[in-house]
Amino acid sequence: MNRAVSVPELIIRKRSGGELADEEIRTLIEGYVDGDVADYQMSALAMAIYFQGMSPRETTALTLAMRDSGVVVDLSGIAGPKVDKHSTGGVGDKVSICLAPIVTACGLKVPMVSGRGLGHTGGTLDKLEAIPGFRVDLPTARFVRQVDRVGCALIGQTADIAPADKRLYALRDVTGTIESVPLITASILSKKLAEGIDALVLDVKVGSGAFMKTREEARALARSIVRVGGLAGKKVTALLTSMEQPLGRAVGNGLETIEALEVLLGGGPSDLVEITLALGAEMLRMGGVAKNAAAGRRQMRAAIADGSAARCMERIVKAQGGDPRVVREPDRLPAAPRRVKVKAPRAGWVSAIDALEVGLTCVSLGAGRTRADQDVDPVVGTVLGAKVGDRVEAGATLATLHLRDGRGAKRAADRLGAAFRISSRRAVEGPLLLETIRR
Amino acid sequence: MNRAVSVPELIIRKRSGGELADEEIRTLIEGYVDGDVADYQMSALAMAIYFQGMSPRETTALTLAMRDSGVVVDLSGIAGPKVDKHSTGGVGDKVSICLAPIVTACGLKVPMVSGRGLGHTGGTLDKLEAIPGFRVDLPTARFVRQVDRVGCALIGQTADIAPADKRLYALRDVTGTIESVPLITASILSKKLAEGIDALVLDVKVGSGAFMKTREEARALARSIVRVGGLAGKKVTALLTSMEQPLGRAVGNGLETIEALEVLLGGGPSDLVEITLALGAEMLRMGGVAKNAAAGRRQMRAAIADGSAARCMERIVKAQGGDPRVVREPDRLPAAPRRVKVKAPRAGWVSAIDALEVGLTCVSLGAGRTRADQDVDPVVGTVLGAKVGDRVEAGATLATLHLRDGRGAKRAADRLGAAFRISSRRAVEGPLLLETIRR
Repeated sequence: MNRAVSVPELIIRKRSGGELADEEIRTLIEGYVDGDVADYQMSALAMAIYFQGMSPRETTALTLAMRDSGVVVDLSGIAGPKVDKHSTGGVGDKVSICLAPIVTACGLKVPMVSGRGLGHTGGTLDKLEAIPGFRVDLPTARFVRQVDRVGCALIGQTADIAPADKRLYALRDVTGTIESVPLITASILSKKLAEGIDALVLDVKVGSGAFMKTREEARALARSIVRVGGLAGKKVTALLTSMEQPLGRAVGNGLETIEALEVLLGGGPSDLVEITLALGAEMLRMGGVAKNAAAGRRQMRAAIADGSAARCMERIVKAQGGDPRVVREPDRLPAAPRRVKVKAPRAGWVSAIDALEVGLTCVSLGAGRTRADQDVDPVVGTVLGAKVGDRVEAGATLATLHLRDGRGAKRAADRLGAAFRISSRRAVEGPLLLETIRR
Repeated sequence: MNRAVSVPELIIRKRSGGELADEEIRTLIEGYVDGDVADYQMSALAMAIYFQGMSPRETTALTLAMRDSGVVVDLSGIAGPKVDKHSTGGVGDKVSICLAPIVTACGLKVPMVSGRGLGHTGGTLDKLEAIPGFRVDLPTARFVRQVDRVGCALIGQTADIAPADKRLYALRDVTGTIESVPLITASILSKKLAEGIDALVLDVKVGSGAFMKTREEARALARSIVRVGGLAGKKVTALLTSMEQPLGRAVGNGLETIEALEVLLGGGPSDLVEITLALGAEMLRMGGVAKNAAAGRRQMRAAIADGSAARCMERIVKAQGGDPRVVREPDRLPAAPRRVKVKAPRAGWVSAIDALEVGLTCVSLGAGRTRADQDVDPVVGTVLGAKVGDRVEAGATLATLHLRDGRGAKRAADRLGAAFRISSRRAVEGPLLLETIRR
């Protein structure tokens, strides 16, 4: 790398609160990919960025440099607005699986690159893989072809999409530098911009089951992504949504896929339906398919009612190697051999369900990962029998555990039971949709 | 490494302003040496420490863990107080070379492990190596033997002394994490404690030619080292001394050695003599050889006057492979083939000499390094013809450049000339000794 300013000088400038020029940021990222900038320099820089932040201009330069570290998918030859959704992750968040086919049925093209679960939250890829045969590792050319023919493809990050992000994320994970708004912004947007999208809706989860615990943190991230997305020439809207209790009733890979398929067929829990409609309506509005969000909601409800959303999902499942009959017959999915009910110790109203604890309990059953190289079990998890605001009698089922075997069942049941707070007074569920942030 | 808390968790705790336990710090340093803690984790931790600092307890734990990463020299079998001096480095700072034999002649044992020059400052080892044959790479056993027999040995950091510091310092150098008081404290003290000393005098240089540009920075470092040294069970005194203009008149390896030898013979520039006496008197006081600093100064002057200091240096030079005759006949040292005078453009009083610029000019001639793997030229440098407060006439010699050949001579002369400020009013030199910091 031929450079006027040395890497340590750039680190020191950021450390001292100075700004890095676009070309300097690009040189750093290119050097990181080429091996001219060492891991130990990049981690020190990431820590300096954690403390000193980055301006929107710097964050944009970082985003674009990371996007350009790999292939930028060209979808310009495909007709129609290309719009994607990204969620910062929460417990029971299976929205992508119902949302993508519904908005595709409404006329969008959805080139969706998703992630795997890590920590207490699940990942769309793990949930989709609960469908036997479903492949998420499509090569880029096949991904493009499927978006063209089917309107939607649901895949994982390929090796050629934003490799700088892949390496930097893994580095941040082991160096205590995950929690930085500009670095999270660049990580999310670099991958999404590489998909070739026109617009993006971001679901920023807030609460005990989310990575962002407070409204302020969530708002800061949402504003950063909306602003940097705009500077990169893309329309981005962010919705702040509540993640205090799990979304829907199912937590666990296959269980969540089944619940998402129920939404496509006109059912599903009301909170999951509501979030799906809110995000999808914004996607349709931004894509120019609906004149406003209310119209978008009507179009989505129509696509569910007339079966076009479910048919779209059948085409996606078929194109990616799965049995399309699972969409209408979820019983075809593998099921857990063992179930254990968690019962209410007394009568009352459910006033809180700690989403983080529910998520961690499912991870302990094998539904999630504590390290990136672990496999997940598609059948284990839990289905909640009651949610916040519900009245329960003593002995009523609070949740059903789906287990591989009896090991750890007692501990998991106790932990899950303790995640429920039952009060003598009626609790009112807080709002789901907290805030909408546009440019 | 078997540990309850993961490395990223420790980094995050420090990043968040928390404290690390002694055992955690020791585990980190041992893991770093063993390869269980990666360079990229250590650099991120160093950056977190840069921002969040460390308590004296944490800094002490870091110092002791780094000391214990290698051999701790055992000098307990050698009679007499073992006292060393360390300087944070400045332009023209050749104090160690005259100080060590003088205080040794007064009755101290001086096990001195020094460094090489980097950046604009020179290093004692490079200066000593200007004496043909002089070896600074003695193995530890021979070092101990020489301290016992001669009273003093002047060597470089061996591979077995504080290897964790050696690796961490090299890492900090390329990751923008040098300027951290706790990390500098641990780096300096870990090596000095490994020498087996009883007490240490620290010369913290302040000013344009030093690493610490302000009195506040210097004071913070001095207080940290004095406090942490005390927590580690050693007596440490720090003197803050001025480094606005070069110390003495000679800058450049061999030229500085000659000037230091002049001090041993009763000559030498007054500022160099003054700093040498101030530091040495404190060493003698701490070692219990002098009842107070004033008595220490008298003993040092006597050791110079009666020739015992010079004889001690002859023994050191001989023991380390050099020709002891150089001590009384400095003309035996190699000399530069070419000299260029820098003349005063007008009459006036010298009101400032930018030490940093003088240092960098000498580096450009080959006297120093811009990278750690470079060789230095022992003969090049400059001898100042005037210092701050001196009256000069137009055309008088401000400095003489000692050059290997004609290349770059004009540029070096111009740069050196520009480092002098000549005023029409008489300038008063500021005090040399700024502050003394004891526990």
